[in-house]
Amino acid sequence: MSAYREAVERVVRAALAEDAPWGDVTSEHLIPAEADATASIVARESGVFAGGAAVEAAFEQVDERIRITDLVDDGSAFGTGAVLARIEGPARGVLRGERIALNLAQRLSGVATLTARYVAAVEGSGVRIVDTRKTTPGLRMLERYAVRAGGGRNHRFSLSDAVMAKDNHLAVLAAQGIGTAEALRRLRSSLPHTTHIEVEVDRVEQIHEALEGGADTIMLDNFALDDLRAGVALIGGRAVVEASGGVTLETVAAIAATGVDVISVGALTHSVRALDLGLDIALRA
Amino acid sequence: MSAYREAVERVVRAALAEDAPWGDVTSEHLIPAEADATASIVARESGVFAGGAAVEAAFEQVDERIRITDLVDDGSAFGTGAVLARIEGPARGVLRGERIALNLAQRLSGVATLTARYVAAVEGSGVRIVDTRKTTPGLRMLERYAVRAGGGRNHRFSLSDAVMAKDNHLAVLAAQGIGTAEALRRLRSSLPHTTHIEVEVDRVEQIHEALEGGADTIMLDNFALDDLRAGVALIGGRAVVEASGGVTLETVAAIAATGVDVISVGALTHSVRALDLGLDIALRA
Amino acid sequence: MSAYREAVERVVRAALAEDAPWGDVTSEHLIPAEADATASIVARESGVFAGGAAVEAAFEQVDERIRITDLVDDGSAFGTGAVLARIEGPARGVLRGERIALNLAQRLSGVATLTARYVAAVEGSGVRIVDTRKTTPGLRMLERYAVRAGGGRNHRFSLSDAVMAKDNHLAVLAAQGIGTAEALRRLRSSLPHTTHIEVEVDRVEQIHEALEGGADTIMLDNFALDDLRAGVALIGGRAVVEASGGVTLETVAAIAATGVDVISVGALTHSVRALDLGLDIALRA
Amino acid sequence: MSAYREAVERVVRAALAEDAPWGDVTSEHLIPAEADATASIVARESGVFAGGAAVEAAFEQVDERIRITDLVDDGSAFGTGAVLARIEGPARGVLRGERIALNLAQRLSGVATLTARYVAAVEGSGVRIVDTRKTTPGLRMLERYAVRAGGGRNHRFSLSDAVMAKDNHLAVLAAQGIGTAEALRRLRSSLPHTTHIEVEVDRVEQIHEALEGGADTIMLDNFALDDLRAGVALIGGRAVVEASGGVTLETVAAIAATGVDVISVGALTHSVRALDLGLDIALRA
Amino acid sequence: MSAYREAVERVVRAALAEDAPWGDVTSEHLIPAEADATASIVARESGVFAGGAAVEAAFEQVDERIRITDLVDDGSAFGTGAVLARIEGPARGVLRGERIALNLAQRLSGVATLTARYVAAVEGSGVRIVDTRKTTPGLRMLERYAVRAGGGRNHRFSLSDAVMAKDNHLAVLAAQGIGTAEALRRLRSSLPHTTHIEVEVDRVEQIHEALEGGADTIMLDNFALDDLRAGVALIGGRAVVEASGGVTLETVAAIAATGVDVISVGALTHSVRALDLGLDIALRA
Amino acid sequence: MSAYREAVERVVRAALAEDAPWGDVTSEHLIPAEADATASIVARESGVFAGGAAVEAAFEQVDERIRITDLVDDGSAFGTGAVLARIEGPARGVLRGERIALNLAQRLSGVATLTARYVAAVEGSGVRIVDTRKTTPGLRMLERYAVRAGGGRNHRFSLSDAVMAKDNHLAVLAAQGIGTAEALRRLRSSLPHTTHIEVEVDRVEQIHEALEGGADTIMLDNFALDDLRAGVALIGGRAVVEASGGVTLETVAAIAATGVDVISVGALTHSVRALDLGLDIALRA
Repeated sequence: MSAYREAVERVVRAALAEDAPWGDVTSEHLIPAEADATASIVARESGVFAGGAAVEAAFEQVDERIRITDLVDDGSAFGTGAVLARIEGPARGVLRGERIALNLAQRLSGVATLTARYVAAVEGSGVRIVDTRKTTPGLRMLERYAVRAGGGRNHRFSLSDAVMAKDNHLAVLAAQGIGTAEALRRLRSSLPHTTHIEVEVDRVEQIHEALEGGADTIMLDNFALDDLRAGVALIGGRAVVEASGGVTLETVAAIAATGVDVISVGALTHSVRALDLGLDIALRA
Repeated sequence: MSAYREAVERVVRAALAEDAPWGDVTSEHLIPAEADATASIVARESGVFAGGAAVEAAFEQVDERIRITDLVDDGSAFGTGAVLARIEGPARGVLRGERIALNLAQRLSGVATLTARYVAAVEGSGVRIVDTRKTTPGLRMLERYAVRAGGGRNHRFSLSDAVMAKDNHLAVLAAQGIGTAEALRRLRSSLPHTTHIEVEVDRVEQIHEALEGGADTIMLDNFALDDLRAGVALIGGRAVVEASGGVTLETVAAIAATGVDVISVGALTHSVRALDLGLDIALRA
Repeated sequence: MSAYREAVERVVRAALAEDAPWGDVTSEHLIPAEADATASIVARESGVFAGGAAVEAAFEQVDERIRITDLVDDGSAFGTGAVLARIEGPARGVLRGERIALNLAQRLSGVATLTARYVAAVEGSGVRIVDTRKTTPGLRMLERYAVRAGGGRNHRFSLSDAVMAKDNHLAVLAAQGIGTAEALRRLRSSLPHTTHIEVEVDRVEQIHEALEGGADTIMLDNFALDDLRAGVALIGGRAVVEASGGVTLETVAAIAATGVDVISVGALTHSVRALDLGLDIALRA
Repeated sequence: MSAYREAVERVVRAALAEDAPWGDVTSEHLIPAEADATASIVARESGVFAGGAAVEAAFEQVDERIRITDLVDDGSAFGTGAVLARIEGPARGVLRGERIALNLAQRLSGVATLTARYVAAVEGSGVRIVDTRKTTPGLRMLERYAVRAGGGRNHRFSLSDAVMAKDNHLAVLAAQGIGTAEALRRLRSSLPHTTHIEVEVDRVEQIHEALEGGADTIMLDNFALDDLRAGVALIGGRAVVEASGGVTLETVAAIAATGVDVISVGALTHSVRALDLGLDIALRA
Repeated sequence: MSAYREAVERVVRAALAEDAPWGDVTSEHLIPAEADATASIVARESGVFAGGAAVEAAFEQVDERIRITDLVDDGSAFGTGAVLARIEGPARGVLRGERIALNLAQRLSGVATLTARYVAAVEGSGVRIVDTRKTTPGLRMLERYAVRAGGGRNHRFSLSDAVMAKDNHLAVLAAQGIGTAEALRRLRSSLPHTTHIEVEVDRVEQIHEALEGGADTIMLDNFALDDLRAGVALIGGRAVVEASGGVTLETVAAIAATGVDVISVGALTHSVRALDLGLDIALRA
Repeated sequence: MSAYREAVERVVRAALAEDAPWGDVTSEHLIPAEADATASIVARESGVFAGGAAVEAAFEQVDERIRITDLVDDGSAFGTGAVLARIEGPARGVLRGERIALNLAQRLSGVATLTARYVAAVEGSGVRIVDTRKTTPGLRMLERYAVRAGGGRNHRFSLSDAVMAKDNHLAVLAAQGIGTAEALRRLRSSLPHTTHIEVEVDRVEQIHEALEGGADTIMLDNFALDDLRAGVALIGGRAVVEASGGVTLETVAAIAATGVDVISVGALTHSVRALDLGLDIALRA
């Protein structure tokens, strides 16, 4: 089982427990155990789908006899009214799993859809749109997957797997008389040789030290377009260039046009609008 | 410790682990262990605050020496630029806890702020604005708390603690020749006497059976305003009346004016826009 | 899998671990791995059965090759000598699961049997016999299930899902000049509209305030029979009436005859006498 | 922290979660956060106390500001009306912890009290009264502790730490032409030298093989008094002698008088009658 | 599932999570999902195998479609170049499970191989070679199994299941005027009758008290060969005799020749040299 | 609390539970609860220390009243007889924590000591000695810490945080007509820009493609010394150069002299010899 699928199974298990600590009193008392149902997940608006594994996990964990078919691929674009999956099995289980399946598929499809709009906005530029650590607590692996489903790419996973030296870090060292270049050299000598080192700079002038210290990526934070262009020119391919801050669907194309390599967008995950998906249930003949 | 606080501590613990499975390589290699920092959480837009416990938990779990002061009360309204809390302690810990504290406070304040707008829109009507089960997996207790912080009220917590007989439930029974009134009587006789029974109806005519069956609450789903008024009149105080479906900030006042008791709003939690809060860090002199 | 079954699986898993943290040294060293056994669970006294899921879980978790057949339904009455289930499979597993299967089936059948006696004692009265929160720590879902298997009904599940305002709660408020009716109105306005509110009263005179406050259920605690009758008359159908305190198999019929709706009996679960069940093992030919 | 105390803390934590998955809605909505209460645990019948650690854990886990004083020692005998502990602190916490503290203290005191009656019945005989594996799932460490508090002793903890070769085990081997003595020799050679080997025999004649095989303890199962005496004489101090089966408060003295070393009594834990203890709450002046 | 197998599954699960918290980025991005591979675990040096269950668990947990065949039995001796198992299935899974399977099989085979050398060194003496509590944290059940696979035997599992009264314990009591014999008698009277009591002595003279107190096993710690012989003679079969301290492959035969029953060797597990095993992968045609 | 310290606490907690599932029967029955002890951890051979946090955690978790003083710093070299820490507190706790503290400190000091010997062997060369994924399951964070304490550096933490494209990976792609350079470019385009890409090559000729594909590190696996020199020259600073395979204390200096940047040594952690440390206990006056 892939690490992503394992994460989905874990999230779904916790969500089901949260949603019914001692059972679904409505279904258990109203619906006969032997009643079956068929249902469809239907799009009430257009978008890009993500979360198929969550749909499968929600219904299968509730009742392993439930069958999910016609599940569209993650990353597929769909229009209003599209059927995204069919669910068939014991009615109690279908009703029990519905809310959790939708809660996750709506959110993840929301992430994928928004990401796809950013990616489309920079199409042809060669720039990659990436996420940030502004993810929902507990859902990072799922939301990062949804970003990829929408055509985006991921930034570092966590604080453990890559360095991001921000202004605050550098300020602490500056206060002790240690410059950026020296700080980066120290990092390089104590970290694994496999650890990527990214540095945030707020002004064009800071780029020199970042380059001197051997940064792998230089993040230009909240730079005006002209400054982005100047930064790209100054770096000249010696480091990956990331733009960050103030990125919207309106501004992203212009930012991409400055020649940066990567644009990171916190909004991809920090303000997820649930896509409007519904479950239409039919009794099985 | 209250159940809410316990939930916050648990969510924060998982979020910190997710955000740094084997430590914060940047801070640990760049920031001296003995360096201190002071920081402020500052509002970059106005809103209603929620998530103080998450801020405390994030920093205290990272380093118990960190002190949080001047934390505004949950439910307080604030303007752009307001300082919502001050954080003081070891710089490594302050930098380590920042993202998790913000990720939670931004989301919960987003929920509280949106809720407050709905509540304001129905002010004076006596109607209560309530949440739904469309919460973020894993965060239900936190988001429900934020709804209350914004002046809203909660619906049932889960599938376990109250009945909500929806159209699909009733359709299954109808197919077996069992009417709504009879179904509700059966529920009443098998459930604990403490279990509240709510029924969803889609048309005014269904209200008769719901009343006959002794429903505690009747939910009028996607009713036009005129139908809502007719439903309220028909029920005549014999059950709580809940309106649901198609509720927006534009429509909510008119819905409230129909005389319903409760309006449930999925958007309070299913599409949380993170409020823009930032952490301004200063080195301690 | 139903919430009850999940709870059973969890309890059995913990019980098996507790009973053999590093294996069953007797069976593993004495019994050949390939030896099979058949066994029967036999009643050494009469009663009402509960715990079939625990029997299945105990043997299946130990060895998935074990087959359980002829398992009597939960809620079935049986006489001395009755065979309640047959177990067939690897001898090591049968011997390993025996104690845990019996420990649970004996207790749950004990609960069901006692409950059935209370239910029989009030037969025809229309009164429901319900349990309380005096359950064995960790086994609440199982014991509540056994109460239902014995023909009883359940009270609220926990402190989270319904209000029970007891004398102590009301006394605190009285000390602040807040009467019962006012307290109940405050509860109603802040709790979800789906939360049932029950109030305990110790004297007939307190009933007026409970009714005025809109209590859903009024519990008459330790009332004499005459007072119960007076209380029932006074309430007049405006709230559910629960009798509690001093309920025994000798007194329960007279209490039921007073016209109360519900009688709660702590003894159903607080003092479980294990029913005498045994496992007769035979080697498989 | 002792292993017993750790087990108590774990059981209490699970019990509190089970009893209020999302808080105590009554206390949280009715009782002011700043109200204090004092309370006493009072005996409504006489007995022997056990469970002091559970009382402490229940209240301290709920609110660390609660103070428990005048807690009687485990193993103390007390009369009706005795005060077993005083609890003082925030009223919400006192009300929240009450049921869990009592549920455990009542059960454990029930075990201790029953054990003490068995021990008293054999006083002067030098025989030890011991428990069995017929404990409540999840509570073995607590119930075994209560047996000791009542003056009893413990048998092996689990299937992992000592051998008990029962008739079924031996029958499997007999079917393969392996006698008891040979079976015991095989056990001895493959088990750790520290593993105690006990054999169950159903007839006096089986004792010879048990002795020949070098059993450490021989359990005489369901022996008549005369046979017990014969068995004791035959064994002649070469193994510990345990009597089991059909032991009641009426028969235990006669069994003890046969000269056996140990009498195991399943009833000590398999049918715990909760001792009647109550919590009298007073508001703090 | 045996307790050993359950422990293996648990250790493997944790190891896989530790080795790839959010997936194997190399295989997932480089290897097509549909590519299959066959592989062999090959011995690069001779030894005794242990850890077959770990090999199975590692690959099966990663992908249940992987098949393990030709797995040699635990306890088998093998030469350089021997194939110990064949693995066949999806290439991603084979590559993902490789390191964990080898990490465990190499260590456990290292334990088995070293144990076998000790056992061979005392062959014919009737002495048993046993392990100690000097096991790798978290791996005790696995390493004890490997000792048995190598022909050794186990000592007590833990501090819970048998007494080992060491010099420090006895010194504390001596300081209070309590001698060894009296201390052992006290232990005997308060412990379960199934608890084996072992005493450590440092000088021949201490043996008298140990015998008088009724020790089940007497451990002669760091005794010279002559003293071991004297101890054995003095004990004369009244207790099991264990030798401990300074045991090496060079000295163990001479120690065994003194007539002791058991020799405990910490080195079996405290300094595990991983046996050199490799995984040769081939693409499946 | 640092991520390392949290890992230590977790490992120690599991180890204590494993070592005494239901308490330390020897100490609890022999040692008076009020007896105190002082003890010293003493080196029985020279080495480099690691594991101070494990010593603290073992004793503090057992009894928070135990005080650890004079603990030498991780990374300190010491001679035979050196006192590495003093422990003072309740005797039961000191005896209970001893084995776990030593089991961990001995292993971690073994890792640090061996690492220090490798580091010393390449002193002055500027080469870094790094660990591998051949760590003990469950102890990776601790063993990697010990490598650093010994003066070594770490390689990637896991399969999740950096790419290592081995011969098997590349062979799969080659079979599909995809060369190494193309494979690396594909990796680069789909992975986060922060992911370091390392490629293993077995022959000098493969280096060209690795360079062409833009590898960050090129690992020369089992190269002869001359080939290492040739590889270093060919790479010419365009990638980090790692040597691996056949590294021993005898060969490491010559390997370092070839000009490689990094030498990875599996033996640092796969065959940990426990350093001989003991706990000398004294009763407190």
